[in-house]
Amino acid sequence: MNKTSIEKKLKKIKHKADELLHRSLDQQVNVAVTGLSRSGKTAFITSLVNQLISENQQSELAFFTPVSQQRFIAAKRVPQQHNLIQRFTYDEGIAALSQHTPTWPKPTKSISELRLAIRYQPTSSLLKLATDVVTLYIDFTDYPGEWLLDLPMLNQTFEEWSEQTMALLTKEPRLSVASEFIDEVNKLDPFAPLDEQVLAELSEKYTDILHTFREELGMSVIQPGRFILPGDLAGAPILQFFPFTGFDSIDKNEYQNAETNSMIGTLRARFIEYKSRVVKKFYKQYFVNFDRQIVLCDSLSSLNHGKASFDDLQLAISMILESFDYGKSSLLKRLFSPKIDKLLFAATKADHVTPDQHSNMVHLLNKMVYKKRHELHYQSVDVKTLAIASIRTTDVGKSRYQNKDINVIKGQRAADDKVITVFPGSVPSEIPKDDYWQANTFNFIEFSPRVPLRDHQALPHIRMDQALEFLLGDKMR
Amino acid sequence: MNKTSIEKKLKKIKHKADELLHRSLDQQVNVAVTGLSRSGKTAFITSLVNQLISENQQSELAFFTPVSQQRFIAAKRVPQQHNLIQRFTYDEGIAALSQHTPTWPKPTKSISELRLAIRYQPTSSLLKLATDVVTLYIDFTDYPGEWLLDLPMLNQTFEEWSEQTMALLTKEPRLSVASEFIDEVNKLDPFAPLDEQVLAELSEKYTDILHTFREELGMSVIQPGRFILPGDLAGAPILQFFPFTGFDSIDKNEYQNAETNSMIGTLRARFIEYKSRVVKKFYKQYFVNFDRQIVLCDSLSSLNHGKASFDDLQLAISMILESFDYGKSSLLKRLFSPKIDKLLFAATKADHVTPDQHSNMVHLLNKMVYKKRHELHYQSVDVKTLAIASIRTTDVGKSRYQNKDINVIKGQRAADDKVITVFPGSVPSEIPKDDYWQANTFNFIEFSPRVPLRDHQALPHIRMDQALEFLLGDKMR
Repeated sequence: MNKTSIEKKLKKIKHKADELLHRSLDQQVNVAVTGLSRSGKTAFITSLVNQLISENQQSELAFFTPVSQQRFIAAKRVPQQHNLIQRFTYDEGIAALSQHTPTWPKPTKSISELRLAIRYQPTSSLLKLATDVVTLYIDFTDYPGEWLLDLPMLNQTFEEWSEQTMALLTKEPRLSVASEFIDEVNKLDPFAPLDEQVLAELSEKYTDILHTFREELGMSVIQPGRFILPGDLAGAPILQFFPFTGFDSIDKNEYQNAETNSMIGTLRARFIEYKSRVVKKFYKQYFVNFDRQIVLCDSLSSLNHGKASFDDLQLAISMILESFDYGKSSLLKRLFSPKIDKLLFAATKADHVTPDQHSNMVHLLNKMVYKKRHELHYQSVDVKTLAIASIRTTDVGKSRYQNKDINVIKGQRAADDKVITVFPGSVPSEIPKDDYWQANTFNFIEFSPRVPLRDHQALPHIRMDQALEFLLGDKMR
Repeated sequence: MNKTSIEKKLKKIKHKADELLHRSLDQQVNVAVTGLSRSGKTAFITSLVNQLISENQQSELAFFTPVSQQRFIAAKRVPQQHNLIQRFTYDEGIAALSQHTPTWPKPTKSISELRLAIRYQPTSSLLKLATDVVTLYIDFTDYPGEWLLDLPMLNQTFEEWSEQTMALLTKEPRLSVASEFIDEVNKLDPFAPLDEQVLAELSEKYTDILHTFREELGMSVIQPGRFILPGDLAGAPILQFFPFTGFDSIDKNEYQNAETNSMIGTLRARFIEYKSRVVKKFYKQYFVNFDRQIVLCDSLSSLNHGKASFDDLQLAISMILESFDYGKSSLLKRLFSPKIDKLLFAATKADHVTPDQHSNMVHLLNKMVYKKRHELHYQSVDVKTLAIASIRTTDVGKSRYQNKDINVIKGQRAADDKVITVFPGSVPSEIPKDDYWQANTFNFIEFSPRVPLRDHQALPHIRMDQALEFLLGDKMR
């Protein structure tokens, strides 16, 4: 072996060793994103990814320390980990925003994934001694908020779940939509021999009213979550059950002994199977692997829909917080040992109000998560609230009103695509009292994305850097 | 304990014992139904179930021995075995056929299930001694024919599969549809760094041409099958591959060493993952449990489409027969130990031609399965061919033509819903030669279901009793 070839060999070995060292220092974090009431999950992930991969071009991430400390080198997309899950459609989203007439990215159904590799210079002494550059892999998982709302079912019997759901259904505005369904369930003889077709038809009706609750009434608590986005389970018996109304009038013993060849026995069996094969499966396959969770909510739309919708958003938030209660008595803890240590609640569409209203948006959100948040803090889950705009659609200006300056926003109204300059109204800083709702209605306007995105341009946003800092800052020290 | 209560107890014990005996004598059979080129799977299962549950009303099942020997008691639907699989939509199908203007049942997507319990009197001495009445449980599983066509992929490398698929794609009529796609794949640098978006877009194009092959050209060989009915896998990387065109011009060694961060390495990895997590999974979860298999094909439509479509049907049938080759060298046998012992090929829509043409339909089908069938016979898979109509839509009559009687059929033409009386043409009894195709075109007419089904009426059919006899006769002795 001559000298050159030895040098070559040594160089190769050194390269391998460096590579190995880098690999062992590389880090990984699973970031889960979900949302309530059409809060713009797809826009959020599209923007988050866009901010990171556009960095050094024009993105504005002053509050994201790896960027402000100039340690951020570059981010790029790499293949995701699970090949049986949909790829998050980032390119399609960017294409929609880059059209001559930009449109919002299409919402994702079910679950999807995207992986980024971020190269950065570490500050932490251990990493710094060993290497100049580290890679952080981020796996984003996007899944429907309703899946998270199913968790409390695990703690319930069919009887308890039915009673809780009926309590919701028998209150307006749900009652008007549900009354026909309730009447039909009332007519059901629970101990009659099983007729699967009857259960299939009533389940379909129940699914229909869930859609109406969600899409027309702006409700957030939709259970069971898989009913509205069934995927491959569409038409399967496991999704053919519904809350039973008549527990007060049936014999408890007879109910306990009911077999699956009776109506009630089958409803109960399917509820149990749903819990184990749909709800638990989600927690086992996905939830236990998440490190960070973002829950998006569109509090402005809920205010627009009125008291019932707003109350429902509150209920949904408190139900979701149950999934992060890692106390001793926690079912979740016992079943799955989850490891989420940071939880971000973000009120989206902050660009739809004037900047002076943002602190009210956060106050309002804080009130909704307050009680539970307090408990959680002691359980080492770090909870944060933010008012953000994933993709900013408005500009801020001033207008004169009665000889005074008032803040206004200018944007393209979604309803008619007209560019308007408007004061969209104030956001309450407290949860509004009943009499407040009687006297006031909210009418926050929906805006469309405006200027087509140019190549390599970063999306305009509000506080996405603060979201990044909370979610990733500590992982990039 | 007084006498009456002792008698009661004894009676109860005797009842339990009887029940136990019955249960142990009960039998079960898994019947799988699939089809090629829109052959009417849903209509077939709907009719099969209808014939069985309507028996003793008006169904005509003279060739089904349990009925002709008056040992058939009754059949009823009972809950299916797998709650995560769609219920076969029997009631919806019957409702569609019972409308004032009857329509065909909607085709099922993906996989669905239905279970029947048939009570009958046994003739076999062992059963007869023990009991008067036995129950046979039949589980019908309905799944896309394309899933069965994926099996040969298990025996192939990515290179072999690409070459075989390219051989198909570069022949007309596929070529005209595929040429743009082929050009784009030709431009792909196989060793370039992976760009997932490029693979996603080319896979989408490949999926589009598969749909065109199937729906416009009447082709049967559609691979990979899951591309056209992806269900929850829509948009997942596992479905983002396609045949590679340039194997002749790349270095074999370099190909073998290509890693998954290259284009070709990823295509190969996804092909392998597809085989293991989609194709094998189907065989493991479902196929191994089937006892009887029905393959439906619409040979009349293939004749209408012309030589290429007809050749493709032949190819599909021979590919499917590979799944039933249980010889020593069989991959399937080694991997899964399947147990299907009866295989029925049925040419559907026999009511679309005059009865004197039925034997030609069967002859033609026989020619297509002949070679393989011969081999299979020795491997203890019993293969049968039949010409059937799941739901008869025409009446047979005579007409005078040049002073002679000719057979005609009368039915409602699907194209314009007009009732017509017509001689629809002859079916060839041999596989037509090339020059035959040049001189002749076929034009078999599609008919709609006609008279609305009345309550409890059995559907009119052709030879469904013979299908039942072949599939179930030996299980009901």
